[in-house]
Amino acid sequence: MKLSDSGEFELIEKIKGMFPAPGGGIVKGIGDDCAVVESSGDRVMLFTTDVLIEGVHFTKDLIDPENLGRKALAVNISDIAAMGGKPLYAILTLGSPEYVEVEFIEKILSGINSLAGEFDIEVIGGDTALSPERLMLDIFLVGESGKDEVLYRSGAGAGQVVFVTGKIGSSAAGLDILKKGIKSEKFEPLVRAHIMPRPHQKEGNLIASSGLATSLIDVSDGMVSDLRHICEGSKVGAVIKEDDLPISEECRLYCGSYGIDTLEFALFGGEDYVLMGTVPEHMYYKLRDQMKSGGCAFFPIGRTRKEPGILLQDKSGEIKKVEVRGYDHFRFSEK
Amino acid sequence: MKLSDSGEFELIEKIKGMFPAPGGGIVKGIGDDCAVVESSGDRVMLFTTDVLIEGVHFTKDLIDPENLGRKALAVNISDIAAMGGKPLYAILTLGSPEYVEVEFIEKILSGINSLAGEFDIEVIGGDTALSPERLMLDIFLVGESGKDEVLYRSGAGAGQVVFVTGKIGSSAAGLDILKKGIKSEKFEPLVRAHIMPRPHQKEGNLIASSGLATSLIDVSDGMVSDLRHICEGSKVGAVIKEDDLPISEECRLYCGSYGIDTLEFALFGGEDYVLMGTVPEHMYYKLRDQMKSGGCAFFPIGRTRKEPGILLQDKSGEIKKVEVRGYDHFRFSEK
Repeated sequence: MKLSDSGEFELIEKIKGMFPAPGGGIVKGIGDDCAVVESSGDRVMLFTTDVLIEGVHFTKDLIDPENLGRKALAVNISDIAAMGGKPLYAILTLGSPEYVEVEFIEKILSGINSLAGEFDIEVIGGDTALSPERLMLDIFLVGESGKDEVLYRSGAGAGQVVFVTGKIGSSAAGLDILKKGIKSEKFEPLVRAHIMPRPHQKEGNLIASSGLATSLIDVSDGMVSDLRHICEGSKVGAVIKEDDLPISEECRLYCGSYGIDTLEFALFGGEDYVLMGTVPEHMYYKLRDQMKSGGCAFFPIGRTRKEPGILLQDKSGEIKKVEVRGYDHFRFSEK
Repeated sequence: MKLSDSGEFELIEKIKGMFPAPGGGIVKGIGDDCAVVESSGDRVMLFTTDVLIEGVHFTKDLIDPENLGRKALAVNISDIAAMGGKPLYAILTLGSPEYVEVEFIEKILSGINSLAGEFDIEVIGGDTALSPERLMLDIFLVGESGKDEVLYRSGAGAGQVVFVTGKIGSSAAGLDILKKGIKSEKFEPLVRAHIMPRPHQKEGNLIASSGLATSLIDVSDGMVSDLRHICEGSKVGAVIKEDDLPISEECRLYCGSYGIDTLEFALFGGEDYVLMGTVPEHMYYKLRDQMKSGGCAFFPIGRTRKEPGILLQDKSGEIKKVEVRGYDHFRFSEK
């Protein structure tokens, strides 16, 4: 069977099966946003990696090299944030065709450097290699957290509130705008959401240190796809309320103007890099207030339930099953 | 300027300049086999990454998937060994074209898994992505060591003995044999040296814990190229004695049979993944004896000197300058 028939998630399941739950000081192996390893005392180290490949994750005509560098690091910071941790050290593998200008590479590095500075991350090593057709940026990020503060995909219980820490669908709308070559100042925030995603590290830290949330993930593949990770990891299902989905005015306006179903972007778009998690109902207001005091957005979007599967309650109140779709690298037809 | 005109080492110099020597708990940033970061007490953590790209570092017709997986991990273990450390955790980024068979990927993973088992390494995470034209295996390896035991490229003094922990040139000969499609049992050890390099972790540990050596590196780019890293890092030069170069019988036989200059492989071949280092002359015999008792090979190949540059004393006793050549990803003409 070819990878295109198997799909990425099946491959990851196979990988999980081949490298079974490790023991020793390893708190969490394959299967969450980061691997978690015991450090000294009650601290843990977090390890994550996310690769960006030209033509697959980005194209040079739609993103400038500085922002490409920033984004390569941002998606990794987002993984650390999704565990409630703090990023510390980055290691970079840079693959490049030989015809690429050194200045272009320097701009990528300068982008990485600038975001690293903003998040107090030290870039401490890496590897360079020829990648004949495509630029390739693979960043390995090391972070840390308190052992009891780390949040996993697997901690949600039934009947809990599902929340997100920011608007969803904007990044997908921004990509659509870029692809269509639409130039309009009013849609700039959407383009920025796609090109310059802000990792929600502050949000993740607040949520983790509150001790109130039961699970956390970042919205990278698409809201529904990522919610499925929480649901499957926690052995619950969820009902999402269409009316509660935080969708920006610009996104609604863009979708309205171009005859696009806003829900498509909000449910399946991905790359928003906001955080999504769960909190028991009786803790919900406490967490919401703490987030508000911290200056962080916080939106309830639904509720978990015992029964598996993800449902959507639409504006008319009707509840229907949501087919899980999201980015699968080996199945393009799905996107 | 394009990368092909600048070259890999110039690019790495640029990167070093952009991410200057970091402070805090970072003992060593960019510029050695691993980055070194303070851990608890007198321990340090080691971080390294090495990527293998199809058609650049390997071709599927010359290496089977199990051994490809093993080698992807082996080259990283070798980097940890070159600091005198012990590998602990691996994180894998796997990029693959969609037409690749799942079974092929499973064999790669199985190879990684088997070598990981031999070295007590836990594979704890990773990322998968579509890489449309080429398989790509990027492994991040985390290791550890005692802070005072770590060996760098930069510790060599003038007048010290340069040593290697195994034969050199065999891997390059093996690659040559594979490329030419020569099938001969007597050259099998050379092919194995290329396809199944053994990381010299035991050697690295012995050398580091002896406290006798002053510098250490692994022979990956080519002996002279890697010796240049020691020389430049330590601000010394070196004279290598042709007569002392440990070249296997098979390698000499192969080169003799096919009219190849053995020195070419030994000096510039690379990918032997033996260790090379320096030891003060009065410590040399002590270290040699310790290596012998540990069952490890140990060959003196020359001596460092104050004057920069790398010289070769040939069989007639004549001393000449060696032009540094080695694998540069962005300058193919050099190889």
